[in-house]
Amino acid sequence: METELKGILDDLKFLQNSFLDPSQQALIDKMRSRVDNVTNLAKSGTMHRAKVKELSAEVVDSNPYSRLMALQRMGIVENYERIRHFSVAIVGIGGVGSVAAEMLTRCGIGRLLLYDYDKVELANMNRLFFRPEQVGMTKTDAAVQTLSDINPDVVLESYTLNITTVQGFETFTSSLRNKSFSPNKEGSGVALVLSCVDNYEARMVVNQACNELNQTWMESGVSENAVSGHIQLLIPGETACFACAPPLVVASGVDERTLKREGVCAASLPTTMGVVAGLLVQNSLKYLLNFGQVTPYLGYNALKDFFPTMEMKPNPQCSNSACLERQKEYILAKPARDAAAREKMSAEVLTEGPLHEENEWNISVVDDNDLTINDTRCSGALPEGLTHELPIADEFEKLPAAESSNDADDLEDLKRQLEALNA
Amino acid sequence: METELKGILDDLKFLQNSFLDPSQQALIDKMRSRVDNVTNLAKSGTMHRAKVKELSAEVVDSNPYSRLMALQRMGIVENYERIRHFSVAIVGIGGVGSVAAEMLTRCGIGRLLLYDYDKVELANMNRLFFRPEQVGMTKTDAAVQTLSDINPDVVLESYTLNITTVQGFETFTSSLRNKSFSPNKEGSGVALVLSCVDNYEARMVVNQACNELNQTWMESGVSENAVSGHIQLLIPGETACFACAPPLVVASGVDERTLKREGVCAASLPTTMGVVAGLLVQNSLKYLLNFGQVTPYLGYNALKDFFPTMEMKPNPQCSNSACLERQKEYILAKPARDAAAREKMSAEVLTEGPLHEENEWNISVVDDNDLTINDTRCSGALPEGLTHELPIADEFEKLPAAESSNDADDLEDLKRQLEALNA
Repeated sequence: METELKGILDDLKFLQNSFLDPSQQALIDKMRSRVDNVTNLAKSGTMHRAKVKELSAEVVDSNPYSRLMALQRMGIVENYERIRHFSVAIVGIGGVGSVAAEMLTRCGIGRLLLYDYDKVELANMNRLFFRPEQVGMTKTDAAVQTLSDINPDVVLESYTLNITTVQGFETFTSSLRNKSFSPNKEGSGVALVLSCVDNYEARMVVNQACNELNQTWMESGVSENAVSGHIQLLIPGETACFACAPPLVVASGVDERTLKREGVCAASLPTTMGVVAGLLVQNSLKYLLNFGQVTPYLGYNALKDFFPTMEMKPNPQCSNSACLERQKEYILAKPARDAAAREKMSAEVLTEGPLHEENEWNISVVDDNDLTINDTRCSGALPEGLTHELPIADEFEKLPAAESSNDADDLEDLKRQLEALNA
Repeated sequence: METELKGILDDLKFLQNSFLDPSQQALIDKMRSRVDNVTNLAKSGTMHRAKVKELSAEVVDSNPYSRLMALQRMGIVENYERIRHFSVAIVGIGGVGSVAAEMLTRCGIGRLLLYDYDKVELANMNRLFFRPEQVGMTKTDAAVQTLSDINPDVVLESYTLNITTVQGFETFTSSLRNKSFSPNKEGSGVALVLSCVDNYEARMVVNQACNELNQTWMESGVSENAVSGHIQLLIPGETACFACAPPLVVASGVDERTLKREGVCAASLPTTMGVVAGLLVQNSLKYLLNFGQVTPYLGYNALKDFFPTMEMKPNPQCSNSACLERQKEYILAKPARDAAAREKMSAEVLTEGPLHEENEWNISVVDDNDLTINDTRCSGALPEGLTHELPIADEFEKLPAAESSNDADDLEDLKRQLEALNA
């Protein structure tokens, strides 16, 4: 717009220098002042802040980072400035993903990679972030527009694609591999992948990519009735992958049969989506900046304000072969991990003064029993308030093996489970 | 801007009809197309959605309410449309209040009253909602600009004032009393007041106004180190008011002495603010639309993802006289409440079929013991993870009464407590 307005002004000046009568000259003067007005109006609506070279902790109103750098001075985060070196990929820029992207942008994350194939609709307006004037834009374009206005320091990459297609998956994984932003980083080009998609298939695709790339990621989800949600940390080989155990849901206390009626669209609330996005990015910040306790699984039941937590170990019978490879690597690396832990511990004992409270490399001394790979499905011990979203495969398989199908009750039971699986 | 652009176009047309040579004519054609471009660009940035007369549950992309009305069809909320009849007042349009306002706006609340005296600064950009181009605007004006774009159906009233001044307090209480939006409503003109302020004095002022008006309100807060927060429901006479007990904080595990260094501004995070705003508005929706359990107190410890809850009864020795009056009224109304509860119960027993699960008037049959007004300070039994923000007054008072100050240790102790009170 600025270019066009400058063009009009130049044309008017050129015209004024050509042969014109006094009334024509006066008219051109009037137009020039009108163009100036429009230019000023346009500017006031799009005043952007300049880029910032280094994060400053100076306590002045004009410093967009003062309240974040205060975390360092208050002893919460040891080195907040590290945030500028991290890349985070967000898959799904909907009710949770868009808010997560805005939070990371406002925190001054180094680089964001955004993936979505969908367009903004008025039906999305009951969740935070997108605005009615963005209706019709792709979610990725609309997000880049808003986020670059909020914080021009963040490097934004947007991918308008469906990761569940062959071409989409290829672009997705190669963008994660790209290390041009941080050439010296080990592993992939991103520190973390956040899955904010709304369906099972896309989650399995993120799971596949992260298992292949040995990429730590976090999963998030909100129930179709909008009153429960969860976040989950997945470290290939170390924790359960998404295929290791059937997905868990936070029991909302609402009869599930009322949820899946035909022609009924899923409900959603800006509150539940906002809380889940907040918990997800909070856990991401704790993971990236190494403060507090990174939570392996956190549920949110909005009707009761209940927040169950749990840990899930990988399944040695996981159907995902890349997961099994990562599990093997994790077991093989155990002696090295133990040695590093011992070294770290003796170094701390030797240090004079108080013991370090920080743990930069997230190393912990663990009991051998804790390292045993153990399938949570087998124990069946879920914390209060959590249930499996799908029937448990093991239980389903056990039935026909245990007894031949002579019993009519068993058959009925089996049918019900099959129906549930197909639902 | 549109008027100015139309003016330029008219002037150009007029000029084209006067005597000009062909090259001048061509230049004017070029300028006209440039003005058209600017007009289109200006329009694309300010496309607003039209107002909606009635909330529709129709599942189409163009319906901004379809995902909210789905709550009704899924059996979560009995009557979602009621939301259009409620007014909510939000005091403090900062990191929590602005997000709470946006959530309620996107939920289609009837009317919002916004109170703040502050201006938008770049230093606010690490929290959601405000944008860099709004720097210098009052927070109330900037909020109205953004919220009216998001949902033109919400009636927005903004009050740029400080409620802790005499004039500000008067305008605040009279705006709460104003019943022009819902003339038949009992009590004040608003259904709920949300306190999203960042200091003790302003909270005491909201407490005073709500005790005087017998107004139910919710309190919210985030710690200065940005890693803990809380929400609290306050019903005058029925629950503890803000003066009944010293304010509680969620223990963050961070040494409090490191927090209050001179010249250090408070830290803040969009995550913690977003989670607290989400929990606050979720509790508000449950209270207004009568679903789930309204939580009396919910804490949030971000470092451990720990969420303590508790209930607080009013203090019969509360220093606030309006609170004591509300407590008397609540006790006097006990027989009527009991009778209504009995009637409701027998009506439910008489009804054929399954018992009603909804409870439109929030009536409950309570044991006599539960109604006893009891000061939580006396019992001293706080749930795990919660501590008093200030020293407990009762304990402080008990000391000199119990023994005369002969013991030097006691004196030292007293001194420490006095210092803590003055800190």
